Amino acid sequence: MLSDVCYDDGMENKKLKVGIVGGTGYTGVELLRLLCVHPNVELTAITSRGDAGSAVADMFPNLRGYVNLVFTDPAKANLGECDIVFFATPNGIAMQQTRELLDKGVRVVDLAADFRIKDISTWEKWYGMSHACPDLVASAVYGLPELNREAIKTARLVANPGCYPTAVQLGFMPLLEAGVVDTSYLIADTKSGVSGAGRKAEVHSLFAESADNFKAYGVAGHRHLPEISQGLSNMANGQVGFTFVPHLTPLIRGIHATLYAKLTKETDLQALFESRYANERFVDVLPKGTHPETRSVRGSNICRIAVHQPQGSDVVVILSVIDNLVKGAAGQAVQNMNIMFNLAENTGLEVVPLLP
Amino acid sequence: MLSDVCYDDGMENKKLKVGIVGGTGYTGVELLRLLCVHPNVELTAITSRGDAGSAVADMFPNLRGYVNLVFTDPAKANLGECDIVFFATPNGIAMQQTRELLDKGVRVVDLAADFRIKDISTWEKWYGMSHACPDLVASAVYGLPELNREAIKTARLVANPGCYPTAVQLGFMPLLEAGVVDTSYLIADTKSGVSGAGRKAEVHSLFAESADNFKAYGVAGHRHLPEISQGLSNMANGQVGFTFVPHLTPLIRGIHATLYAKLTKETDLQALFESRYANERFVDVLPKGTHPETRSVRGSNICRIAVHQPQGSDVVVILSVIDNLVKGAAGQAVQNMNIMFNLAENTGLEVVPLLP
Amino acid sequence: MLSDVCYDDGMENKKLKVGIVGGTGYTGVELLRLLCVHPNVELTAITSRGDAGSAVADMFPNLRGYVNLVFTDPAKANLGECDIVFFATPNGIAMQQTRELLDKGVRVVDLAADFRIKDISTWEKWYGMSHACPDLVASAVYGLPELNREAIKTARLVANPGCYPTAVQLGFMPLLEAGVVDTSYLIADTKSGVSGAGRKAEVHSLFAESADNFKAYGVAGHRHLPEISQGLSNMANGQVGFTFVPHLTPLIRGIHATLYAKLTKETDLQALFESRYANERFVDVLPKGTHPETRSVRGSNICRIAVHQPQGSDVVVILSVIDNLVKGAAGQAVQNMNIMFNLAENTGLEVVPLLP
Amino acid sequence: MLSDVCYDDGMENKKLKVGIVGGTGYTGVELLRLLCVHPNVELTAITSRGDAGSAVADMFPNLRGYVNLVFTDPAKANLGECDIVFFATPNGIAMQQTRELLDKGVRVVDLAADFRIKDISTWEKWYGMSHACPDLVASAVYGLPELNREAIKTARLVANPGCYPTAVQLGFMPLLEAGVVDTSYLIADTKSGVSGAGRKAEVHSLFAESADNFKAYGVAGHRHLPEISQGLSNMANGQVGFTFVPHLTPLIRGIHATLYAKLTKETDLQALFESRYANERFVDVLPKGTHPETRSVRGSNICRIAVHQPQGSDVVVILSVIDNLVKGAAGQAVQNMNIMFNLAENTGLEVVPLLP
Repeated sequence: MLSDVCYDDGMENKKLKVGIVGGTGYTGVELLRLLCVHPNVELTAITSRGDAGSAVADMFPNLRGYVNLVFTDPAKANLGECDIVFFATPNGIAMQQTRELLDKGVRVVDLAADFRIKDISTWEKWYGMSHACPDLVASAVYGLPELNREAIKTARLVANPGCYPTAVQLGFMPLLEAGVVDTSYLIADTKSGVSGAGRKAEVHSLFAESADNFKAYGVAGHRHLPEISQGLSNMANGQVGFTFVPHLTPLIRGIHATLYAKLTKETDLQALFESRYANERFVDVLPKGTHPETRSVRGSNICRIAVHQPQGSDVVVILSVIDNLVKGAAGQAVQNMNIMFNLAENTGLEVVPLLP
Repeated sequence: MLSDVCYDDGMENKKLKVGIVGGTGYTGVELLRLLCVHPNVELTAITSRGDAGSAVADMFPNLRGYVNLVFTDPAKANLGECDIVFFATPNGIAMQQTRELLDKGVRVVDLAADFRIKDISTWEKWYGMSHACPDLVASAVYGLPELNREAIKTARLVANPGCYPTAVQLGFMPLLEAGVVDTSYLIADTKSGVSGAGRKAEVHSLFAESADNFKAYGVAGHRHLPEISQGLSNMANGQVGFTFVPHLTPLIRGIHATLYAKLTKETDLQALFESRYANERFVDVLPKGTHPETRSVRGSNICRIAVHQPQGSDVVVILSVIDNLVKGAAGQAVQNMNIMFNLAENTGLEVVPLLP
Repeated sequence: MLSDVCYDDGMENKKLKVGIVGGTGYTGVELLRLLCVHPNVELTAITSRGDAGSAVADMFPNLRGYVNLVFTDPAKANLGECDIVFFATPNGIAMQQTRELLDKGVRVVDLAADFRIKDISTWEKWYGMSHACPDLVASAVYGLPELNREAIKTARLVANPGCYPTAVQLGFMPLLEAGVVDTSYLIADTKSGVSGAGRKAEVHSLFAESADNFKAYGVAGHRHLPEISQGLSNMANGQVGFTFVPHLTPLIRGIHATLYAKLTKETDLQALFESRYANERFVDVLPKGTHPETRSVRGSNICRIAVHQPQGSDVVVILSVIDNLVKGAAGQAVQNMNIMFNLAENTGLEVVPLLP
Repeated sequence: MLSDVCYDDGMENKKLKVGIVGGTGYTGVELLRLLCVHPNVELTAITSRGDAGSAVADMFPNLRGYVNLVFTDPAKANLGECDIVFFATPNGIAMQQTRELLDKGVRVVDLAADFRIKDISTWEKWYGMSHACPDLVASAVYGLPELNREAIKTARLVANPGCYPTAVQLGFMPLLEAGVVDTSYLIADTKSGVSGAGRKAEVHSLFAESADNFKAYGVAGHRHLPEISQGLSNMANGQVGFTFVPHLTPLIRGIHATLYAKLTKETDLQALFESRYANERFVDVLPKGTHPETRSVRGSNICRIAVHQPQGSDVVVILSVIDNLVKGAAGQAVQNMNIMFNLAENTGLEVVPLLP
């Protein structure tokens, strides 16, 4: 087993020049946590309009001793000299700056939603703005490695999936690919930690508002709904009926997706999942009858999945957990980078989850 | 509005003699919190085998100044002199002692599960013991006031519902009574705070195990499943297909039930729920489009419910929250006591929820 | 004991007209929680510039069914018709509006800091603004009932103490009044829940920033330092040497003050404290050798104190806990109101603490 | 900076055979987290009397894919073939088994308290048992590398310090070594996360007991008091007067020590601390005026310290934070192992702290 986690040296210590646009949010600091000890990465620039000039480690003291960069004004960062640039920005920023970077030969991974949804009008409806570069959307690769690994290898522009979409799609994928459930009535009851709302000063994310409290939100419609629907429909080769109910739970990190579907043909579900993910380093199918905990993936890029068929009925219940900031954001982005640059896929990602 | 909460004096300060068997758990301390300032109650005895002789307020310092009783050995407590006795004991205790109390004219409310399930073999299967008094099960009244108020009024023995069953049944009740959903595929995805596991020293309930962590449990089968199935089937006048997935969430108190059903006829759901609960003091139907928070009922006997039909599909999503220790246990028990003794139903129960 | 908590009817149901300025913060909602079921209060107006016109219970759903007021624009609220007005506003607001209210015969309790510090230049230095009405500062009564009850009875303007100052002063008071400790070296190591920072959208108060985290802050100087120093010096009849180190701890509510002083004469400390607070309903001196928990006062106006002299040395350690929003803010304000209007001091304040 | 964190290869991939006695507690799982990816370690045996035969990763699912050992019965584990054995057992176990291991040439690090206190009668008083091997206590080295590095290099038996003692001693050490404070009146007000109580099923460590709650404990006397007193007295070359007040705070991990001392000669405290720890990889002296957060060391072996002299008085306030399970236990044990085997001291310990 230990061999699983040896650092691969395929690139013989080649260092990629890496830039991060928008380094002051949680996906930013998480990218830094992973990249600052990644053996094939040289952190070149981290931009922030508001905090230009201040030391990154002053804002994020966990990085003291690991990151000695200061935030750079985006206008002054020579991002064109990077091998790869990550956008850890709010929605609508990456689409403004990506073309110029691509033209300079820089590869781009967008951790926001600008390139995730292929249907431009759907995107514009849910995100409330006009898209700046519909043609790039067409060429962007949706960065879910377990689904799109081959395309990611040669991608210039990767749309890194959302956190809920990662947990939900990895949970439904084996069922939909195998065609064994009723696709007209899929339910995802999902629970997210508060860091999913980002490092924005908003009342509902205050400790005194969200601690010792549990609630659903966005039941009428959440931006991850069209992203997941697109993905599930692709897997099912046809439009799915999908109900998505997100909840806020007092975790710092973690997503737990509980998925419901009706089985249409008898199937050895455990074998189906184990076989589908047999060669996936970052998807762990748990033994039958078990329940994954979010903390079992805390700080790690792993998605753990358990499969249930309670009381012998035809209802399948899938439990899928990720760390929203890692497999649901920064870790998956690094996984995509590793694939794009032909590094061992787990390079820099073998952080043992922190428990307790 | 203030008139809603005035203390009713129907009994002109008549004081009921109240005993509690098993006062050292969370339902015990919660009964004490409510009863010690209940205007029609005189706390007579609180029993505990293990802590007999020690002051209640030493174990529960919140009660200093309010409760000056000491725990009594059950053998020495003159429970037969009480008007009413609450069992806040583990399953299997109340069924041993109830007949003797009933024979002495004492009314009994069991907060455990001994009298909740009418089918004895089902009960014995799920609870792993033989039932000591099947005949009393037959005569016991299931203490969900919004369903069984009339029967409770004259009941000698009330089976106080479980916490999950309260939240789930109140959420499904209007739909099932109106016959507007497909009863073959009902789903309850429920989330409970850790106090639901009781004040028992168990590793999985430790702070360092359950804080910053979220997981499902008992997906293969949870003891509240047959209780809820029985209730829903009664409401639906026929066996329902019901999937129940409980989760543990890092709250001290609170249950959030997210319920899914398929609509079989077009219905004004908001009107249906508002009408069903129009006269219920302890069920609050929220405005359309809103999301109840568990903290909005913290410490209170209220169940808040919101009704959704996301994206205009035929899937109904009901959000139902309670405080598991109040409406899900001790508060509902007091509500039942008030009904049994012809007190105003909200007597002693108008505690404003604590937020934040 | 139950007699302790009976509602006093001294005013024979006279209802005071009560206004609240700035009802959208945590001290505001907490005032509402207590006042909406206070038997001698009629809530008349709650103002908010930003939220005028919206229902109070929409912002604070715990108040549904208890408060049906809407927020009023301050300019349109007829506060002059109130018997008493509470300012639950940021610092610097009350001093602008108090004179006009006093002139109309309205009594005022300011929950902010405008009238707490007698030395105007000290106040102006720590609060960074010019004081609008130094003469009113002189006539304001510092509203710590256990210290100033007689003056509060006739006060027109009460400066409600800060949260830390309440816990610290109640802890040191018996020692200083008795003159048994070295006043040149007093230390208060204090810990506060996050609600103490208010319901303001600030990054450091986010759940993902303050959960599972502990830190000191403001060690160089905190605004409560001069307030406490003033109080301790008054008690000691001379300038004290005082070190104040506040910490942020992941509680919603609660302050724990750990106080250190050096004993200068042998004293029965337990007797000293019990005697000093023998007649105080809201100060509870715990038995020797015990440790108060913040949750033992959650939601309640009680301050619990324990006295230690570890290892028989001459170092006194006092442990003092309050709920920062109740005895540290809204509850103490209501206690002051009760005193000002000759109501039983505990009227409306006998909320049993919520544990767990 | 990145050079700081390169894995040192001094041993050219020599693998140490490592055994762990008592692997089912939090220090056990934490040792496993660090050792399973340590480049010079081969995990050989993990013992547990109660769980022998079950897979380690079944109990600690974070280790799935990293540790494939099963728990071994202590009687059957060939610990004598190890290069080093860690005791992660309750107090009183290591002293029974250490001699046999030492005699076989195995080096031993005890994470419990058996060898920490040199005065046997003091140890026996605080730990309530007779010591099994006083002679080994004399030869054991107290494993605080920043104090005892040279002795650790050649030690056969290391007494790994307690969590509080680590944070407190590192905070006071520069002051005492420099002789600039009054040693007769030192105060440590310390706060610990709940994992410090271990993975034992006890009521006071339940989530519902310790969440949203803060309290002091053991003020009359805590077992870490004599350990710290011994250390401080050694540093001060004479008996110190020391008051120690521990508190429980709702963190999973983390210790925050707030230390108070009176300065006896004018000193540039910032320079003193920076100079003392200039060459220490795992002590980080923060810039003047800052406040370390426990989360800034979460999962990491670093101790961060800030120095204050509030209001220009002669009172020094030191803030010192560690992760109790890492620098306060398992990480420091690995640091000691690295020193004992002449590995780069940070080998396997460059885990970037997890924030948020």
